[in-house]
Amino acid sequence: MAHTLKIAALQLGSFSTKKEAIANANNQIRMAAKDKGAKLVILPECWNSPFNTKDFGRNAEQIPNGETSKAMAKAAADNNIYLVGGTYPEEDGGKLYNTCPVWGPKGEFLGKYRKMHLFEANIPGKVKYNEPSVNTPGNQFLTFNIGDLKVGVGICYDQRFAEFAGAYRQLGCDMLVYPSAFDTYTGPLHFELTAQSRALDNSMFVVLCSQARDNSQEFVSYGYSTVCDPWGRVMCRAGEEPEMLIADLDLRMLTDVKKQLPILHQKRNDIYELKVKK
Amino acid sequence: MAHTLKIAALQLGSFSTKKEAIANANNQIRMAAKDKGAKLVILPECWNSPFNTKDFGRNAEQIPNGETSKAMAKAAADNNIYLVGGTYPEEDGGKLYNTCPVWGPKGEFLGKYRKMHLFEANIPGKVKYNEPSVNTPGNQFLTFNIGDLKVGVGICYDQRFAEFAGAYRQLGCDMLVYPSAFDTYTGPLHFELTAQSRALDNSMFVVLCSQARDNSQEFVSYGYSTVCDPWGRVMCRAGEEPEMLIADLDLRMLTDVKKQLPILHQKRNDIYELKVKK
Repeated sequence: MAHTLKIAALQLGSFSTKKEAIANANNQIRMAAKDKGAKLVILPECWNSPFNTKDFGRNAEQIPNGETSKAMAKAAADNNIYLVGGTYPEEDGGKLYNTCPVWGPKGEFLGKYRKMHLFEANIPGKVKYNEPSVNTPGNQFLTFNIGDLKVGVGICYDQRFAEFAGAYRQLGCDMLVYPSAFDTYTGPLHFELTAQSRALDNSMFVVLCSQARDNSQEFVSYGYSTVCDPWGRVMCRAGEEPEMLIADLDLRMLTDVKKQLPILHQKRNDIYELKVKK
Repeated sequence: MAHTLKIAALQLGSFSTKKEAIANANNQIRMAAKDKGAKLVILPECWNSPFNTKDFGRNAEQIPNGETSKAMAKAAADNNIYLVGGTYPEEDGGKLYNTCPVWGPKGEFLGKYRKMHLFEANIPGKVKYNEPSVNTPGNQFLTFNIGDLKVGVGICYDQRFAEFAGAYRQLGCDMLVYPSAFDTYTGPLHFELTAQSRALDNSMFVVLCSQARDNSQEFVSYGYSTVCDPWGRVMCRAGEEPEMLIADLDLRMLTDVKKQLPILHQKRNDIYELKVKK
């Protein structure tokens, strides 16, 4: 297994049409792969259309048979990369999901993850959002392998659930990626904190890939895409503007941390136990 | 139930004899209660003797029948406070425990918590510690009530286990207190991070009460005692020197946070579930 993995988290801006959003993603993916040498590219949450409950249904597609998915499968193959396709609205059997598809370097579809925890907040004067009013929650974890490295997929609000990350640790993941779009109120309070704590608690790499901030949108995304190492340290973070965040992950760090601070082996499963049912 | 609770985390210095350490604690507790009006006072980990594996047995006492416990029971009664007695070495049936006793405002013994996760780290050139070589881990949670507020007790390295804090949430706790003594290498990386994430993930107050830094000791404690609110924000923190950290907890915040960000009700127990066995 290679000792390092170069990744790119693409903090994409927003566009007025899906066609433009796809063209921009294609362009950014090519630059990340060809110019920067990224082997894994990650897109943000709801990057092909506005993240509004009212627009969600109108923009939904079949996954992986819709327009956006076909373009992304081709982008993965053309650039010979693993592609975590961020999320976009999925329609299936009359229901809507906030879904993240993943492709391998031959353009092969590796599976899709449907957001399990739907964003619900009501902070007077700050944030009001009710994702469960339109979307149906998913019921399945998704993992994929890059060589020996097992990667788990979550989406945005899933970050807030320690058990969710702990479940992926039990499934053998050494890395979690979360396409994200935190709001601008809880973002400064919690975005980096959840990245660091999931990384530290589970001795794994964590990547949060956010949309760029666009104050013209109804839902304004926080930005600040972040990569953390298994020691819980922030390796790099983006700002608010569209940005290509590149990180070289030293995979040997996974072995070192587990040996130096053996928390994964010191859990008291005789006293408490996280059970994963799926 | 009162809307506020004034607490004091006493970041105590170290002393060459147990007698001096007890006299100092008595003095600080009285000032916290009488001068500052604290109703709950918290002491740090292993405050009555050095936190060395080699000295642990020599300083061990019966709890609550030993010298230190008797003094602390009297301090709680004399000052009409709840006292989380930090930790000191306990001997019971030929075994050693790192134990935190708690007293109520009449000096009544409310129970003791024995550290469940024993500190083990081997970070070359930075930290080497093997608490399991001397101490036996505990097997029981400890909670106590101040009016309607249920408080859970952990010790230092327990902070690193998300499931441990999650278990106390299931037991109904709205506050966790951890007498602590992080080392000076992992302290800056992880001490505040674990406080914030346990508070945020469980919508609870979290208090870390550390020993002050003393570079003349074999084990040098990090310091930086910290209080976090249920929103994951640091309310206040100490520095490295001995310090009395006072915080006024607004207990109404517990209701607000749970309503505004309802993560406690959004866990997917159909997919994963934290089971508490004791």
